[in-house]
Amino acid sequence: EMAKLTQLIDNDVFLAYATYAAIVLLKMMLMSLVTAYFRITRKAFANPEDTASFGKGDSAKKYLRTDPDVERVRRGHLNDLENIVPFLGIGLLYALSAPELSTALLHFRIFAGARIVHTFAYLIPLPQPGRGLSWAVGYAVTISMAYKVLKTTLYL
Amino acid sequence: EMAKLTQLIDNDVFLAYATYAAIVLLKMMLMSLVTAYFRITRKAFANPEDTASFGKGDSAKKYLRTDPDVERVRRGHLNDLENIVPFLGIGLLYALSAPELSTALLHFRIFAGARIVHTFAYLIPLPQPGRGLSWAVGYAVTISMAYKVLKTTLYL
Amino acid sequence: EMAKLTQLIDNDVFLAYATYAAIVLLKMMLMSLVTAYFRITRKAFANPEDTASFGKGDSAKKYLRTDPDVERVRRGHLNDLENIVPFLGIGLLYALSAPELSTALLHFRIFAGARIVHTFAYLIPLPQPGRGLSWAVGYAVTISMAYKVLKTTLYL
Repeated sequence: EMAKLTQLIDNDVFLAYATYAAIVLLKMMLMSLVTAYFRITRKAFANPEDTASFGKGDSAKKYLRTDPDVERVRRGHLNDLENIVPFLGIGLLYALSAPELSTALLHFRIFAGARIVHTFAYLIPLPQPGRGLSWAVGYAVTISMAYKVLKTTLYL
Repeated sequence: EMAKLTQLIDNDVFLAYATYAAIVLLKMMLMSLVTAYFRITRKAFANPEDTASFGKGDSAKKYLRTDPDVERVRRGHLNDLENIVPFLGIGLLYALSAPELSTALLHFRIFAGARIVHTFAYLIPLPQPGRGLSWAVGYAVTISMAYKVLKTTLYL
Repeated sequence: EMAKLTQLIDNDVFLAYATYAAIVLLKMMLMSLVTAYFRITRKAFANPEDTASFGKGDSAKKYLRTDPDVERVRRGHLNDLENIVPFLGIGLLYALSAPELSTALLHFRIFAGARIVHTFAYLIPLPQPGRGLSWAVGYAVTISMAYKVLKTTLYL
C-alpha cells in the first residue's frame, strides 16, 4: 500500500503544498530560537528556574521580567500561529480540491512570501502599513483558498 | 494521478470534514478582524509603530496600552487555537478512519456549533456557565473522535 | 470509495502517525483541564463573568487576577501549540513521504516522549536544563522530519 500513499506525494499540487507548508512551519519554528536569543541577551525570563544560573535569590529574581524585544518576538510568533494554522488546514484541503498547478503555486508562493515579509516587518520593525499589508496579503490568500475548498466540497 | 487525489475529495465523510474544517478556521480567522476593530475603536495598540498615525512622542505613546475589550477578543482567539488545532488534526484522522457518515456529520456539526456559540458567549459576554458549557461540548466531541481514531489506528 | 480512503489508514507509517498525533493532541488538550483546575483552586480568573459565583462587586473582583501557577500552565500550553502544530503538519507530510517504518516510529516516539517530559519539566518544575533539553529534542525531531519532507517533495 506504500505505492498508493506515494501517489499523493507524486501529485505536483500536493508536492508544492508540502514544500510551502514545511517552509512556513520552519519559519514559525525559527521564532522560538529568536525568542530564546532575546531572552538570553536581554536577560528577561518568565520562569524562576531559568534564572538560576545567574545566582540565587534577589540577584536572579531581577531577571524575571518582560522585555520589549522579547515581547515583540512573542507577538510575531503568536501571529504566525493564528495565520499559519488556517493556511495548513485550508491549504491541505485546497491541494486536494484539484486546483490548477499554476494557480496553486501562486497561492502558496504569495502566502509564504507574505509571512516572511511579515516577520521582517515585525522584527525590524518597519513603519506601518508594512506589517499590516503583509498580514492582509497572507489573510486574503487563505480566504481565496477557503472559497475554492467550500465551492468544491460544500457538504453541510 | 489527479483522479486518485480527487477520490479523497469525493468521499462524503471527507467532504463533510473539509467543509466544517474550513468553517471553523474561517470563524477563527474572523477573530483577527474583531481584534483589529477593537484595537482601532478603543485606540489600544501593542506596537509603537501602530500608533504613529496618532502623532509623535507622548501623544502617540498613550495609545500603547491594553484594553479590556481587546484582551477579551484575544483570549477568545487563543481559546480557538487551543481547541480548533486538536479538531483539525484529530478530525482529519477521524475522517480517514471510515466512520458512519451520519455519525461523522453529528460530530462535525456539534463541534462547529459549539465553537460558534463559544465565540458569542465570550464576546457578548453571556453569564457562565454559557461559555464553559459550549467549550466543554466542543472538547467532548474532539475526545470522542480521538477515541475512534485510537481504537482504529493504535500502533505504538 | 471508502475502500480507497482506508488504504491510507491501513498503511503502517500512517497508522503510527495517527496514533502519536492523537496522543500529543490529547496531551495538549489536557493543559486546558490543568489550567481550569489551577484557576478554580487558586481562585484566579481572567473574566468578570467567571467570578460571579463568588459574590457581587468587590468581593468577586479580587479574583480577577493572575496567579503564578495558572500562568505557568498557560505558558506550557502555548509552548505545546508552538511545537505540536509544526509536528502535526510536518509529521503528516513526513508520513506521506514513504519513510522506513522503524525510522518513522523512532521520530514519532521520541517526539511524543519529549513533549510529555517537557510538560512534567514545566509543571513540577524541574531545574534547567531539564525543560530546555526536552524542548530541544522535540524541536530536533521535527527538523529531521522537515528535512526528509523537503528532500522528497521540493517543488518551489
